[in-house]
Amino acid sequence: MPVFLDSTDAAFDTAFQSFLATKREDAPDVDAAVADIIADVRARGDAAVIDLTRKFDRLDLTPETLAFTAGETDAAIAGIDAEERAALELAAQRIRDYHARQLPGDESWTDEAGATLGWRWTAVGAAGLYVPGGLASYPSSVLMNAIPARVAGVERLVICAPTPGGKVNPLVLLAARLAGVETVYRIGGAQAIAALAYGTETIRPVDKITGPGNAYVAAAKRRVFGKVGIDMIAGPSEILVIAEGDADPDWIALDLLSQAEHDASAQSILITPDPALARAVTASVERLIPVLERRDIAGASWRDYGAVITVPDLATAARLADRIAPEHLELCVAEPEALAADISNAGAIFLGAWTPEAIGDYVGGPNHVLPTARSARFSSGLSVLDFMKRTTLARMTPEALGRIGPAAERLARSESLEAHGLSVRARLDRLNGG
Amino acid sequence: MPVFLDSTDAAFDTAFQSFLATKREDAPDVDAAVADIIADVRARGDAAVIDLTRKFDRLDLTPETLAFTAGETDAAIAGIDAEERAALELAAQRIRDYHARQLPGDESWTDEAGATLGWRWTAVGAAGLYVPGGLASYPSSVLMNAIPARVAGVERLVICAPTPGGKVNPLVLLAARLAGVETVYRIGGAQAIAALAYGTETIRPVDKITGPGNAYVAAAKRRVFGKVGIDMIAGPSEILVIAEGDADPDWIALDLLSQAEHDASAQSILITPDPALARAVTASVERLIPVLERRDIAGASWRDYGAVITVPDLATAARLADRIAPEHLELCVAEPEALAADISNAGAIFLGAWTPEAIGDYVGGPNHVLPTARSARFSSGLSVLDFMKRTTLARMTPEALGRIGPAAERLARSESLEAHGLSVRARLDRLNGG
Repeated sequence: MPVFLDSTDAAFDTAFQSFLATKREDAPDVDAAVADIIADVRARGDAAVIDLTRKFDRLDLTPETLAFTAGETDAAIAGIDAEERAALELAAQRIRDYHARQLPGDESWTDEAGATLGWRWTAVGAAGLYVPGGLASYPSSVLMNAIPARVAGVERLVICAPTPGGKVNPLVLLAARLAGVETVYRIGGAQAIAALAYGTETIRPVDKITGPGNAYVAAAKRRVFGKVGIDMIAGPSEILVIAEGDADPDWIALDLLSQAEHDASAQSILITPDPALARAVTASVERLIPVLERRDIAGASWRDYGAVITVPDLATAARLADRIAPEHLELCVAEPEALAADISNAGAIFLGAWTPEAIGDYVGGPNHVLPTARSARFSSGLSVLDFMKRTTLARMTPEALGRIGPAAERLARSESLEAHGLSVRARLDRLNGG
Repeated sequence: MPVFLDSTDAAFDTAFQSFLATKREDAPDVDAAVADIIADVRARGDAAVIDLTRKFDRLDLTPETLAFTAGETDAAIAGIDAEERAALELAAQRIRDYHARQLPGDESWTDEAGATLGWRWTAVGAAGLYVPGGLASYPSSVLMNAIPARVAGVERLVICAPTPGGKVNPLVLLAARLAGVETVYRIGGAQAIAALAYGTETIRPVDKITGPGNAYVAAAKRRVFGKVGIDMIAGPSEILVIAEGDADPDWIALDLLSQAEHDASAQSILITPDPALARAVTASVERLIPVLERRDIAGASWRDYGAVITVPDLATAARLADRIAPEHLELCVAEPEALAADISNAGAIFLGAWTPEAIGDYVGGPNHVLPTARSARFSSGLSVLDFMKRTTLARMTPEALGRIGPAAERLARSESLEAHGLSVRARLDRLNGG
């Protein structure tokens, strides 16, 4: 049974607070095992990666067969049907167009003291993208990770994608090719993350690692963080739909279920000022679950973490949305832009009933790697900026140093940092003919 | 003895690689103790914070005296001399002017499919800044953390600053006031981080925590990450100076020492094509160390981690700089802009001999919170963006959905995400009169 709450109930605040605090994921503690794997890869390089791949993926590799050759990729993608290929190409093009607008600008200016200031953005040198095997092997995620890196100008872009038992997802290889990925390694798990971070004889180390993975991958990313950059550690997916009375209950039910079907720990929430709509959507969800292929996953998610909240008005809905800080927020209301303007905390907003969240997963253009577990309060979805870094620039003229140097010297002294002060003073003395 | 390397030596690559891999910090493992402190604050709130402050800071507080009152702040800052105050005000103004230019713009456009896309930046709701007590209590760091938050539009901004034995740094309180900080709590350590992340009866939780701290603070920040956002975990400071023959050896020596005096684990590196300058700077450093107040710290840093590298030309210097990826990079050369253009990996670049790094610590304008330990390869200094998050926006018209929806449906099916596909299909059917 999902949670049913009414924001006008006396006990609502307590119930809502407890709903927000519900933990939906208990990651197994694999940290010790992961530490051993990383140490092994650092010590033995390719040999360790090959041994671990034989053990975990039942696959025999050599240094020469760690990566797919161009010929292997050609052969694997030859069987993809034209419609599927066209769909992936449309997605790649739209994602590229959207992210190209995120490229930040450099700045430089001279201020009234005569100091020239500014900053410059540059791409990270090399990025590694992790693509899970099995059920969670999503070609769309390859596009969502690789295209922003390519738009940023990352020079070397590689993928690690395990192929348990040798089973390959051709669409992953096609997505990698469409996105301009240089090399795809058929390795996975903590050993792949270690190889990307520290390098082996065959695999050159990268500067940044992104992409989702299982508990081993997540623990390995946490461990190599600092040696390389990583993206966020993603939690189970979430959607919040805010809907008014004239919304179609089946559409909303399907949108809720398109999160629920991802994972038994996913969360789908409906907030509406219309109790009749709340009942209709609930009925529709219950009717649709049994006919879905993923009925077990979607059913468990809806039963354990689903929620239907009725409110007196949309202003209350907006306030609750900010507290939930959902990964995906769908506004099936008459004036979605006005409602969106009242909400700060959301990874992505889908405006109006004709914008199902699934559009954003594939072809909308914005990134589908988004902050989960209420972290939209303080973080953003993946973007071009995640593959770039900013260097600040400053240049003083002698005159500029003469104007602002004495204040720096004074503050250095007050912080007992004598050499800081002297480094300024030596120059000021020269300026004053010393 | 610092390391002396010549990039033309046959053994240089091995020696340089080993120099880069040298670990300069062995953080004590306080994680178990920190876990207990966080659990205690979550369980007992104010009472735990008060008990732990009595224990660690030898200070008796009550819920009423956790924060400085306006009157206490007035009294504490009344004794600050006018020159010192003016210096801090100049720093605040210049930091504000620089960071105001970092405010990102919102975007919205309609593409050829008829989809309206864009994004919107909003400030995090509340931020907490940590300011260490004792030797590392730097008012300049208060400005560098608080002003970007204020410029970003963070509504509630608080500081935790321990006052061991009740000892207060008036300049920290003045900097907090100049930067528009709402409340300063006289608490520190892991208990302060826990209070900021989870809240107590008196202290409201925040969304983002920034600022440097000791091993306990760093471990606590790692632990609360996910519940709140955090900034990077800063390592010991670094400077790389690239200098040509006509640079003043004393200036460069003082610039190197202004990092060395921070911390025995700090690192100062000189790269020059001029062996005579290398010798002169080394001699100057050795001559200056004994006369510095912090001679023990600066001496240890230079002895254990200092380095002087000679190269055949500036192009080689640039390549090495990119591999070092220094926090601070000073270019004391005739054409610093040209050299800077050849270097990607640096937190901040100081152009020309009249721009000592110390200017950037105080009054230059750019932030002095910068990536350490080679992380400038993939990360940036603190900025306004660290206190904001981006929400992506998408709105389909029925026509736009008609054009790109079928591709989304196709890709959903290929990823076995049936409800995703159905949520699009239900709308397409309506569009087609279904």
